[in-house]
Amino acid sequence: MSQFTFAIHATDGLARTGAITTARGEIRTPAFMPIGTAATVKAMLPESVHETGADIVLGNTYHLMLRPGPERVAKLGGLHKFMNWPHPILTDSGGFQVMSLAQLRKIDEEGVSFQSHLDGAEYRLTPERSMEIQALLGSDIHMVLDECTPFPSGERDTASSMELSMRWAQRSKAAFREAPGRALFGIVQGGIYPELRARSAETLKAIGFHGYAVGGLAVGEGQARMFDVLDATLPHLPADRPRYLMGVGKPDDLIGAVMRGIDMFDCVLPTRSGRNGQAFTRRGPVNLRNARHAEDPRPLDEICRCRCCRGYSRAYLHHLVKAEEILASMLLTWHNLTYYQDLMQGLRDAIGEGRTNVFAKETLVRYVAGDIA
Amino acid sequence: MSQFTFAIHATDGLARTGAITTARGEIRTPAFMPIGTAATVKAMLPESVHETGADIVLGNTYHLMLRPGPERVAKLGGLHKFMNWPHPILTDSGGFQVMSLAQLRKIDEEGVSFQSHLDGAEYRLTPERSMEIQALLGSDIHMVLDECTPFPSGERDTASSMELSMRWAQRSKAAFREAPGRALFGIVQGGIYPELRARSAETLKAIGFHGYAVGGLAVGEGQARMFDVLDATLPHLPADRPRYLMGVGKPDDLIGAVMRGIDMFDCVLPTRSGRNGQAFTRRGPVNLRNARHAEDPRPLDEICRCRCCRGYSRAYLHHLVKAEEILASMLLTWHNLTYYQDLMQGLRDAIGEGRTNVFAKETLVRYVAGDIA
Repeated sequence: MSQFTFAIHATDGLARTGAITTARGEIRTPAFMPIGTAATVKAMLPESVHETGADIVLGNTYHLMLRPGPERVAKLGGLHKFMNWPHPILTDSGGFQVMSLAQLRKIDEEGVSFQSHLDGAEYRLTPERSMEIQALLGSDIHMVLDECTPFPSGERDTASSMELSMRWAQRSKAAFREAPGRALFGIVQGGIYPELRARSAETLKAIGFHGYAVGGLAVGEGQARMFDVLDATLPHLPADRPRYLMGVGKPDDLIGAVMRGIDMFDCVLPTRSGRNGQAFTRRGPVNLRNARHAEDPRPLDEICRCRCCRGYSRAYLHHLVKAEEILASMLLTWHNLTYYQDLMQGLRDAIGEGRTNVFAKETLVRYVAGDIA
Repeated sequence: MSQFTFAIHATDGLARTGAITTARGEIRTPAFMPIGTAATVKAMLPESVHETGADIVLGNTYHLMLRPGPERVAKLGGLHKFMNWPHPILTDSGGFQVMSLAQLRKIDEEGVSFQSHLDGAEYRLTPERSMEIQALLGSDIHMVLDECTPFPSGERDTASSMELSMRWAQRSKAAFREAPGRALFGIVQGGIYPELRARSAETLKAIGFHGYAVGGLAVGEGQARMFDVLDATLPHLPADRPRYLMGVGKPDDLIGAVMRGIDMFDCVLPTRSGRNGQAFTRRGPVNLRNARHAEDPRPLDEICRCRCCRGYSRAYLHHLVKAEEILASMLLTWHNLTYYQDLMQGLRDAIGEGRTNVFAKETLVRYVAGDIA
């Protein structure tokens, strides 16, 4: 099996393009990871996810620990086999969903106790258990357990939360189950405070990880502050390791973050929006529920290569959305994931050719020019 | 364009195998038609429906007249283009759903008035309007408007209902918009009364149709009575025209009906059951919700060729069903439609080889032997 490596093939300003190698294949960067929460990218066959251009998907430790349970997944041969996705998988640590979904959560120095949002059953998550779960799932990239600091939080609360996360990062590293080609990423916390972010990044660098994520963003702070945090954080991370901006984001967020040196993203937007009748297109977001699409024979995007745009009119998509047909979720998710992957491919090409600024400007101008013609 | 034709390639007892030719391609018989109610076979891409082996799908006139409306579909190039299904389509007349779904329906000699179950809007359906709608949709096989007699009904009520349907059949024929390769099928009514069924069949034969359906069955009368009705009806229909048993049925219903001379079927069972976590298999129905599948690494059916059985364990399907994931509906619908198509292929082969009885016996024994091993 291959070792976990990250090769930068080209840079353009702060942006980089390259490839991460894992035991289960290569991830072209900058990369967008579709969300496969409960061992499925919702409304998509895994081969269709791959057809959109995705090299890696994300699995949610919180959801999988509740159902079907990591021991069961391990018994069945691991998450890749379980969900029929032979390519790389990144699992988060479970921390973020514990904070956002679980009930009656109680954090202490050792970890977090909570009740399942599904049936109220009690669970305990610690850095050690998170490492154990991710090893049972068998993912290729593991994430350290962290506390996702609420937004807004004052500097003192943010600092002590970040410091707890750093102690958990240290324990996660100690508990990480090594395997050929498997990686562990640290997660920078520190809210909107540049000094805390810098301190968090330096702490993680000293511990030493295969890659570094920036967590706790896209929680309401706004794009400008998010970019400020990236500007303050990334110089403190080793340039030769992948950098992953967690839970982000809109197309313009991705472009801005790539131009600041981010290599990896995950976000529910393309999949969740697809299930809500929202499409991302080169000319901005489109709400298929809108009556103006009812008799429009054109595809969502004439030049898009996806299954949705190659076979169906906006009128048909409008009909499916109105009728709440499953096929609406299937086609719009397919399109949105293709849009995101094509955006990443566009960024990779532009970085390789030293025209990232031009690509970004053209893409953003077209995107904000308004709804699709 | 081809003319509408029906060629019988082989018979075995009363069973026949052959092919219907329409302007949009051939339909191998006996044929099972998946239901594409609202211009989509739920949870399936049309190319996947075709991959299961389906030559034709059924569209529901009632649903399509309400939403998106037949004039709109016509404007957009017809139902085939709208739903990206270039193969044959049969549309029903709308009559059955008016009786089962619509509100405040009032039948008179001319037709039926009702309110939409979606928004209460008022509609009027007559034999002439049904023919107009089906022509606007552009389907390959049109059905006459009939009154679906409630079950149970006394002989006198059933007779007058059947007679109304016969008058509507005559008007449907007169209003049918001819087109190359397009067919109009009559529908035999008469409830569970052999004499009424025979009279209805003879009446339709005298009017003259491209094919003949048996309607008003699988409404609670039970399989034995249904078969009795077929036995009493089919001898009165021309042997050289396709015979279609509407809304049927379970695998054993299909086998028994084919052995009595039926050529075509439609039913929501494989698709609806798939969305409810129910699978049809060679060894009988399987409820994936059942906890005994939770750690079962085997596919639903080891020898099934479908995408579901080739990539996923029963444990995974159980997980998806429990988590109410869209992929559960997608995979189980795919499997169920494949099961139904393979059953029809098995019947076609068996008829061609003169071993229909053996095939039927083996299939039924295995099917009723109990839940899958």
